[in-house]
Amino acid sequence: MGKAHDASLRLGIAGLGTVGAGVVKIIQEHAEILAKRCGRAIEITAVSARDVSKDRGVDVSGYDWVDDPVALAERDDVDVVVELIGGSEGAAKDLVEKALAGGKSVVTANKALLAHHGYALAKLAEDHGISLAYEAAVAGGIPIIKAMREGFAGNDVFAVYGILNGTCNYMLTAMRETGRDFDVILKEAQEAGYAEADPTFDIDGIDAGHKLALLAAIAFGTRPDFESLQIEGIRKITAEDIAHAEELGYRIKLLGIAKRLNAQVMQVLEPCLVPLDNPIAGVEDVFNAVYVDCDSADTAMLTGRGAGEGPTASAVMADVVDLARGAKIPTFGIPADDLAVPEWMDVNDTVSAYYLRLQVLDKPGVLADISAILRDRGVSIEAVIQRCRDPHKPVPLVITTHQVRHGDIQAVCAAFCKLECVVDEPCLMRIEAL
Amino acid sequence: MGKAHDASLRLGIAGLGTVGAGVVKIIQEHAEILAKRCGRAIEITAVSARDVSKDRGVDVSGYDWVDDPVALAERDDVDVVVELIGGSEGAAKDLVEKALAGGKSVVTANKALLAHHGYALAKLAEDHGISLAYEAAVAGGIPIIKAMREGFAGNDVFAVYGILNGTCNYMLTAMRETGRDFDVILKEAQEAGYAEADPTFDIDGIDAGHKLALLAAIAFGTRPDFESLQIEGIRKITAEDIAHAEELGYRIKLLGIAKRLNAQVMQVLEPCLVPLDNPIAGVEDVFNAVYVDCDSADTAMLTGRGAGEGPTASAVMADVVDLARGAKIPTFGIPADDLAVPEWMDVNDTVSAYYLRLQVLDKPGVLADISAILRDRGVSIEAVIQRCRDPHKPVPLVITTHQVRHGDIQAVCAAFCKLECVVDEPCLMRIEAL
Repeated sequence: MGKAHDASLRLGIAGLGTVGAGVVKIIQEHAEILAKRCGRAIEITAVSARDVSKDRGVDVSGYDWVDDPVALAERDDVDVVVELIGGSEGAAKDLVEKALAGGKSVVTANKALLAHHGYALAKLAEDHGISLAYEAAVAGGIPIIKAMREGFAGNDVFAVYGILNGTCNYMLTAMRETGRDFDVILKEAQEAGYAEADPTFDIDGIDAGHKLALLAAIAFGTRPDFESLQIEGIRKITAEDIAHAEELGYRIKLLGIAKRLNAQVMQVLEPCLVPLDNPIAGVEDVFNAVYVDCDSADTAMLTGRGAGEGPTASAVMADVVDLARGAKIPTFGIPADDLAVPEWMDVNDTVSAYYLRLQVLDKPGVLADISAILRDRGVSIEAVIQRCRDPHKPVPLVITTHQVRHGDIQAVCAAFCKLECVVDEPCLMRIEAL
Repeated sequence: MGKAHDASLRLGIAGLGTVGAGVVKIIQEHAEILAKRCGRAIEITAVSARDVSKDRGVDVSGYDWVDDPVALAERDDVDVVVELIGGSEGAAKDLVEKALAGGKSVVTANKALLAHHGYALAKLAEDHGISLAYEAAVAGGIPIIKAMREGFAGNDVFAVYGILNGTCNYMLTAMRETGRDFDVILKEAQEAGYAEADPTFDIDGIDAGHKLALLAAIAFGTRPDFESLQIEGIRKITAEDIAHAEELGYRIKLLGIAKRLNAQVMQVLEPCLVPLDNPIAGVEDVFNAVYVDCDSADTAMLTGRGAGEGPTASAVMADVVDLARGAKIPTFGIPADDLAVPEWMDVNDTVSAYYLRLQVLDKPGVLADISAILRDRGVSIEAVIQRCRDPHKPVPLVITTHQVRHGDIQAVCAAFCKLECVVDEPCLMRIEAL
């Protein structure tokens, strides 16, 4: 559009893994329509990756090869650096810092980098009058960063809820559908390529936590703060928990929750029970979703593929097209200096209904002991399930509560642990009404 | 952000109905955060509406009142015209044309205007180097225009499916939940304020058709063409159809479908059966949704409130914030001159599975006659339901077919109509697999 953009936008791409190769492919295959959409050509001038000889399914021989990715930041023929190396420190950080400090806008898919150093990098970008774009860092092909920073820019956001990790959502779906337990499903997911050989980052919630920290920053105009995030993964969930939840009208999801409560912000990432009739309960398999609750638009949900070559490359390209069109938007929606350091709500002070599963010995008086503890601590029971009696092994006792302080229900759990009839750690999960 | 935007963005708002009042409210209540998000203040300088004395729940006494909305286009103290009058002709069209021709960007919620005159207006905006923004014209609070023009800008779009009219979706949901028929539910919806006194625009699919024409234009880089759209509303649907569909594993939705098929584009708006396990089937009540199928991002769906003061005002503000931040994007995603005039696919040539409900006299040989016609025309049956036999009145006979040309199944219906045992027009609906 217009004369200002006659020159092509020249990219330097660092990292040619799945996503990097996907980006190259889109730029090569869609060159003509991209030029129309941007009003100028998108061009790759230089690339950098670890192994020059690797077959990536795309031809990169037409681009300058740079061994040290950080060198891309200094090239005169690179307007925008696309950082697809990953990791919160090291080469990725060096490259992004150097590019921004040198006045080059950056497009990145690096959630870890931004969750840890988002504020400093936003400030750096702003000081140099350029952009730091990261649509690909959160929820893959879903344009949620754009929706939050731009689409809902007229709103006061009350809360954001997200299913932000495809591996976990796939596993929870498979556990529900097959009735098989975590370890079995993890092994299958690894064999199918849905989970990494070392799955910690995904199943312990770290990856989703990085993403939630970015969504919370945009939603509430705060500095992203991964350290203040309460994180718990999905290891403790059994197929039985999933079946109990269904029976009670809920589905278990690894949910990122960022909520403003009076002057405080609550930020937790943990498995939750969500009502079956809420649309987020129907988001299954590897799909991601973000559910936004705000004042004018009310509620909205965006669903799509949260990972993989195509979806993530699509998000990278959305940022590239934005930059080619001349967009300039503050990294977290408002100027970095205006980003607040909020008072994070202590998770113990959050109030919610809870699902509680105990493994108990099937003896007389067990329910009396347990309900006495709940009564004495003022926790009101909503439902109880105890079934499949087997005198030879512990049986699950499932209790759902009405609204209770997290700290109080934790104290209840601690008291349960002291009972002789309770074996194993109780499994406690928030029931999130949304 | 930056020095370029130090001056405030000054709006002239034409139309102070529900949405207009909502926009004023947001600008008044969120002035501070909007200024941070935009890097400059958003200011209203002048407003225009029919009745100066009406109580709108917001104080507009601080703005200049203009009796003739078109005069807003000529004011030096108006940078952007917000057109919320509505209608494809008359004052709305005059105002938008004059504003664009005078070099003022326009924000509008007017789907009818754009569906009918989108190409000419896009060209006018482009010739004057300014923007014509219309997020509020499609699907209310859902940022779908932004998603399509920007979020999926790296993609080749294969198809877009939309639930684009809240009134119809509410009515279909209510019919399913209560088992009551169209007329009863329409009356209730009118009493509850979910349907207009004259509901034609909604229930006959015109409103949703306008929106689909805009989505199709962005998806395929074509000139919006409402005239070429095949439109059918929801009047013919009975509660029985809805129950039959559920039994067969489908839900009936008034669906806008825009699909590229080889060199042609298919564009239809009609009630369809969608599989219950597709997320769009779960979009109920007044909610809208758009489901996008594209090459890199694969599939994504955006859901939210498609109408009402808050959601529509939220969308208007998204455009205002974009303009304040300096965004400049071609109206339909590519320069107007590049918008193609596609070959629209004749609806008779579209191929689909179908749901067919006949009212037949309960006599011997009926099914034989009907199945002979299907056989003779090469239409393969997938399922048949005939039940609730009552010798005194016609009974419904429901047939679902495998893939068949629309023209062929229409010919079958015409043949059915000639049978003595068939009373009433057959009810024919596409089964859209998505």
